[in-house]
Amino acid sequence: MNTKKIHAYAPASIGNVSCGFDVMGMAVDAPGDEVILTLNDSGVVSIKDIEGDNGKLPRKAEENTAGVAVIEFLKAIESNHGAEITLIKNLPLGSGMGSSAASAVAAVIAINRALGNPFLKADLLPFVMQAEFVACGSAHADNAAPSLLGGLILIRDNHPLDIIEIPTPEELMCVLVHPHVEVKTRDARQVLKTSVPLKDAITQWGNTAALVAGMMKPDYELIGRSLQDVVAEPMRSVLIPGFHSIKQAAVTAGALGCGISGSGPTMFSFCKGKAIADNVGVAMQQQFAAVGLQSEVYVSKVNKAGARVIG
Amino acid sequence: MNTKKIHAYAPASIGNVSCGFDVMGMAVDAPGDEVILTLNDSGVVSIKDIEGDNGKLPRKAEENTAGVAVIEFLKAIESNHGAEITLIKNLPLGSGMGSSAASAVAAVIAINRALGNPFLKADLLPFVMQAEFVACGSAHADNAAPSLLGGLILIRDNHPLDIIEIPTPEELMCVLVHPHVEVKTRDARQVLKTSVPLKDAITQWGNTAALVAGMMKPDYELIGRSLQDVVAEPMRSVLIPGFHSIKQAAVTAGALGCGISGSGPTMFSFCKGKAIADNVGVAMQQQFAAVGLQSEVYVSKVNKAGARVIG
Repeated sequence: MNTKKIHAYAPASIGNVSCGFDVMGMAVDAPGDEVILTLNDSGVVSIKDIEGDNGKLPRKAEENTAGVAVIEFLKAIESNHGAEITLIKNLPLGSGMGSSAASAVAAVIAINRALGNPFLKADLLPFVMQAEFVACGSAHADNAAPSLLGGLILIRDNHPLDIIEIPTPEELMCVLVHPHVEVKTRDARQVLKTSVPLKDAITQWGNTAALVAGMMKPDYELIGRSLQDVVAEPMRSVLIPGFHSIKQAAVTAGALGCGISGSGPTMFSFCKGKAIADNVGVAMQQQFAAVGLQSEVYVSKVNKAGARVIG
Repeated sequence: MNTKKIHAYAPASIGNVSCGFDVMGMAVDAPGDEVILTLNDSGVVSIKDIEGDNGKLPRKAEENTAGVAVIEFLKAIESNHGAEITLIKNLPLGSGMGSSAASAVAAVIAINRALGNPFLKADLLPFVMQAEFVACGSAHADNAAPSLLGGLILIRDNHPLDIIEIPTPEELMCVLVHPHVEVKTRDARQVLKTSVPLKDAITQWGNTAALVAGMMKPDYELIGRSLQDVVAEPMRSVLIPGFHSIKQAAVTAGALGCGISGSGPTMFSFCKGKAIADNVGVAMQQQFAAVGLQSEVYVSKVNKAGARVIG
């Protein structure tokens, strides 16, 4: 029965989106991870193969985000099915592009389809968050939700989950530049302080509110002015060689704003239109090269549909 | 020349709007302060009379917010004119309803019209902020901007000023209940801590972002869920007798949410529709009475036009 082998795609996402630290994430069109899942009656979930990770990811299903998501899914519906998972990692690991979330999202989209979509898409999120807990030690939705649902997602609350879709303007383009240096989410969390000066916190919530207004009006200039993170970026930018020169180069090349994607080291820019975005990508890559780092550039629209079955 | 005697009105405003501490304010339709200003050639600005303040406000123009705003206005255009101001205080002093801002706004609207509107409305804001500096010791725009311009205003930045108008839904009603107890803005500031736990700050900016989304979608339930202030309200609520029982009564009576207006002691609720708002007003007043406090209730739409000349 050919519906039992499902090929699914889940996009990368920009966690935090600068000022929206821990509450926002946005899906991009590409790159993304792929899962080819074959349903079976073994009652066992296994990882058949992983491509593109240089052997770094766990091959045990219960230690792998894609595997965990499928295990949790099958547990929730008390199914006796099993599944064999092939994971195609297009996203670099530890990059700040929501790599672990994308693998888990592609996996749950695939198992859901294989079993005739017993869940609505949004209801798959808890399985991905359990997988994120295994990968990162915390069950955040700021990559999982946008990769699954698409668009710009605001997570107002985690307990209970309150997920808000924020419309984004048509011409908004995302530039992601991933330098060849690894920053572990855990390390990126450790540089943060446990308290914030009140005046910085006020600046941050003025900007998160303004970013939402800029997206919804829409007002591209306002989006740019709001992309300021006075809380995490000052700490995390020290983990990214050349950070300030890259940010300056992006803005000089026409970016509305520029910041760290998730916990880094990938940096993102928002731009109005593809022509500017292409220029900004080149400018950012050149600046990374100037500090001796190779990098990949991804220029993409906002992904408004989220993860999907592709075969 | 009859255009030289101008009667202007400026509405009360809800400073902070719960989660939007120090960055948001919203104008209500009523109550508001009135200024009757007579232009003359004396080169002197004077306060002719103040009604409704029980003699509490300064009668020297340079110590009175309405006077200061007019003095600064005339200085800016290097005018030799003078003005005589009658101030009709409909707003209670030290109430958290933007009383000092409303007086100054009415005054600048009047002097601007008397001189043939040399300034656009939005450009009058700096004069009001200078007046606020005299009254409160700090030049915040969170009451001044909504009283002047109307609607829900987000102040993304104070230096330079970045004022963003946030659309509000048609059926949104505001309930203001002013108990007869005075809280000085200065005291209300002193109970605040100078730093915030990171996790509370994250909660706050999730809510400010969600409040803007709720207003713009519009989504009344989301507006309600977002009206949470984990930063200032826990400190300031102790200055308001019966705070928690009043908030509970408002929500039980159907309010979307309830909080402190500005630095208090006035409390506000947002409601969908006038019938619910009327009930909420009664419920809040009854709870204030239960702790021995008399209060006034004001039920009003959002004021979308701001201050205006009325004669």
